[in-house]
Amino acid sequence: MKQVLAALAMVAGLTGMVASPGALAAGKTTMSHIVMQVSDNDPGKWQLALNNAENVQEALGKDKVKVEIVAYGPGLNMLKADSKVAGGVNAAMDRNVQVSACAVTMKKMKVTKDDLIGGVTVVPGGVIEIMKRQSEGWAYVRP
Amino acid sequence: MKQVLAALAMVAGLTGMVASPGALAAGKTTMSHIVMQVSDNDPGKWQLALNNAENVQEALGKDKVKVEIVAYGPGLNMLKADSKVAGGVNAAMDRNVQVSACAVTMKKMKVTKDDLIGGVTVVPGGVIEIMKRQSEGWAYVRP
Amino acid sequence: MKQVLAALAMVAGLTGMVASPGALAAGKTTMSHIVMQVSDNDPGKWQLALNNAENVQEALGKDKVKVEIVAYGPGLNMLKADSKVAGGVNAAMDRNVQVSACAVTMKKMKVTKDDLIGGVTVVPGGVIEIMKRQSEGWAYVRP
Repeated sequence: MKQVLAALAMVAGLTGMVASPGALAAGKTTMSHIVMQVSDNDPGKWQLALNNAENVQEALGKDKVKVEIVAYGPGLNMLKADSKVAGGVNAAMDRNVQVSACAVTMKKMKVTKDDLIGGVTVVPGGVIEIMKRQSEGWAYVRP
Repeated sequence: MKQVLAALAMVAGLTGMVASPGALAAGKTTMSHIVMQVSDNDPGKWQLALNNAENVQEALGKDKVKVEIVAYGPGLNMLKADSKVAGGVNAAMDRNVQVSACAVTMKKMKVTKDDLIGGVTVVPGGVIEIMKRQSEGWAYVRP
Repeated sequence: MKQVLAALAMVAGLTGMVASPGALAAGKTTMSHIVMQVSDNDPGKWQLALNNAENVQEALGKDKVKVEIVAYGPGLNMLKADSKVAGGVNAAMDRNVQVSACAVTMKKMKVTKDDLIGGVTVVPGGVIEIMKRQSEGWAYVRP
């Protein structure tokens, strides 16, 4: 019987491991992870993403939700030091929103980290980052 | 042996419970749940979302798919009583498509339920609604 | 004990089967499946989707990632023989990106397979294809 219980525990453990994102997706935890994409060169979209992040934090509780905004392609302009929404980006980071810039786009646009708003996280690739988050069970929204 | 089977049943049950969205994602059931986002102030996008909803219902069978359209931000205009696609929105609701309006946007735009097409569902937040649906295993499409 | 192990194996098997997309979502395998949507009549968006596909293949390894681009609605123009990005579409297909055209849109726009770039896959419906891929655990990105 001990062996059986050990085997059962192993099955449960294995299952738990394998299905963990499924498990995330099931519970409140997924409700509290969201990655937002900004890939348009459109300050209206940038502001909408910032509003969305704030609303989600207000609705779910700032400490109960993890929000990441990923900017890539023409959306990278949102994160330049002279961006029209620089104030909003800073306010979002102050509220613990992770703001990520795509390194592939930066290279293509000849933008360095110094050209970006301070505190922005550089990720290897914007789409790769979004794929990674979805594979971890995060919800995805493109405002 | 009885105890073992009971334990096995428990593991299976637990697994089923924990992994249920995964299970949803696996089977035909996810195929039949889709949430569509409308966040642009663009009648072309509104019509596309309505067409997409209809096509999905035709392809999978109206009674075998659950479709929800969530309008928020500048997309809320789609659901105003004087919307250019009011006829299409009514037709969608007649076909059991849930059409949802974001309460946060309504407050910001000073739009009340009376200003919207009759039958529209007001949800606490558009992005929150989309997160919730994804966490329940629904597919997400932004037309 | 043999029966018990058989039952355990069955539970594990069942769980594996039921939770497989969850499992996919957990591991590296989901990292390597992505479906991209093109539904805008905007060559800038078409080029962005093609760039995204290439970047993902470069980052993860062309043989370790499955990429599909689904064009529907006004995005179908991307795949017409005279498309501004026909060269890029051909290059993507040469790199084993699946490029899919929505049959519902083709019918509506009176576009036949002969009007499309050679090698494009015709799928019954663009949104249905995207739903199917998400239900199989693929990441979804709308550039």
